[in-house]
Amino acid sequence: MKKIDVCLSPEMVHLHKTEGKVVVVIDILRATSCMTTALANGIASITAVATLDECLALGKEGCLTAAERDGKKVEGFDFGNSPFSYQDPALKGKSIVVTTTNGTQAIVKSAGAKEILVGSFLNFTSIVNYLRSQPNDVLMHCAGWKGKMNLEDTLFAGAVVDALKGDFSHDEDSVLTALNLFYTAKNDMMGFLLNSSHVRRLQGLGIIKDIEFCLTKDVYDVLPIMRDGKLVAQ
Amino acid sequence: MKKIDVCLSPEMVHLHKTEGKVVVVIDILRATSCMTTALANGIASITAVATLDECLALGKEGCLTAAERDGKKVEGFDFGNSPFSYQDPALKGKSIVVTTTNGTQAIVKSAGAKEILVGSFLNFTSIVNYLRSQPNDVLMHCAGWKGKMNLEDTLFAGAVVDALKGDFSHDEDSVLTALNLFYTAKNDMMGFLLNSSHVRRLQGLGIIKDIEFCLTKDVYDVLPIMRDGKLVAQ
Repeated sequence: MKKIDVCLSPEMVHLHKTEGKVVVVIDILRATSCMTTALANGIASITAVATLDECLALGKEGCLTAAERDGKKVEGFDFGNSPFSYQDPALKGKSIVVTTTNGTQAIVKSAGAKEILVGSFLNFTSIVNYLRSQPNDVLMHCAGWKGKMNLEDTLFAGAVVDALKGDFSHDEDSVLTALNLFYTAKNDMMGFLLNSSHVRRLQGLGIIKDIEFCLTKDVYDVLPIMRDGKLVAQ
Repeated sequence: MKKIDVCLSPEMVHLHKTEGKVVVVIDILRATSCMTTALANGIASITAVATLDECLALGKEGCLTAAERDGKKVEGFDFGNSPFSYQDPALKGKSIVVTTTNGTQAIVKSAGAKEILVGSFLNFTSIVNYLRSQPNDVLMHCAGWKGKMNLEDTLFAGAVVDALKGDFSHDEDSVLTALNLFYTAKNDMMGFLLNSSHVRRLQGLGIIKDIEFCLTKDVYDVLPIMRDGKLVAQ
């Protein structure tokens, strides 16, 4: 049987083998929710980079730029990290280069995987169906917050493991942790997360609407996948 | 109000400030349960070292030696990692040098803390009472398994945070994770842990009796604390 594992933070991904696996990068609030939204709304490709300098350099070559640090848009870039800013029809066909506090770092650290996807509640069933249909082991790679684990990414990982039971086996305590958190939270994720550090941080930034949207299941059926160093809709 | 935090693995301890804090090192199965048992049974001091070579070197200076790797006693050392081996009255007053797969690494990585304790269910109330009575912030440092988090250490951290509510505040998602796991498991910890990776690993070694003992609350009222590089009973 195929195996599924959960890495709770990029700080621990070196302890998990990524070679030969499909890695699903998860940054629910909000990088991978934004990327899903952008590709579902017709953005042609997304390049994820670790640093602001790399982002600016690619911007000069004609990409739109998006940069977030500490939950806020960085001055001098075209976009921040709100999913709603990617629903503009004028962006259709454009290419974007993105750097965020956690999500893009996790993508960069997933290099070496057989395939890299980005997942969010917004495209939950697309992710689950793809993982079920393909032959490889899976690593759910939570972006966390500045190296530490967070609840919302772990909950999503648990939700995917739960949806795939019967198709995948698992044997790591991080998977049982994600599953148990999901079972505790699943009937009221917003209520559960209102206690979490990152949601409190984002509430302080006045973006509760973003959070509610990012917890909504199956708004889009897009599958964001890395091809030649760029995320595109499969 | 004093703050309490949980570090889920030594691999992440550099993300948590240890300076000025009391750090409680947790390796329930079985290093810190053994250390608690040893000190409660009259062992004078325990030196925790990271490597087998350091352990052998101190052994030549007259200490008894204990070494565990992958759950098993290492050949050529006096003891392995079973708490029952430390209940021998003949050991009273002796000094021991110990190296284990996870627990002693976590102790070594806690250097820099204001105080270092080791905790286990066996001395649960002693740990809780001490943390409540002293003025410093606390970090519960889970030893995990080879860098990854594990359920049993996280459960203990959650149990301590729960017992200290009202005395300590917290704001990290790792603390909420530990608390939620504890609430899920608290009425049947053995049943909960039978699914965990490390318990399955230890069951394979035929030491279910050790596991049951290590999950027993308040067998001892000893407080193991680091003084001049050695763990002693306060």
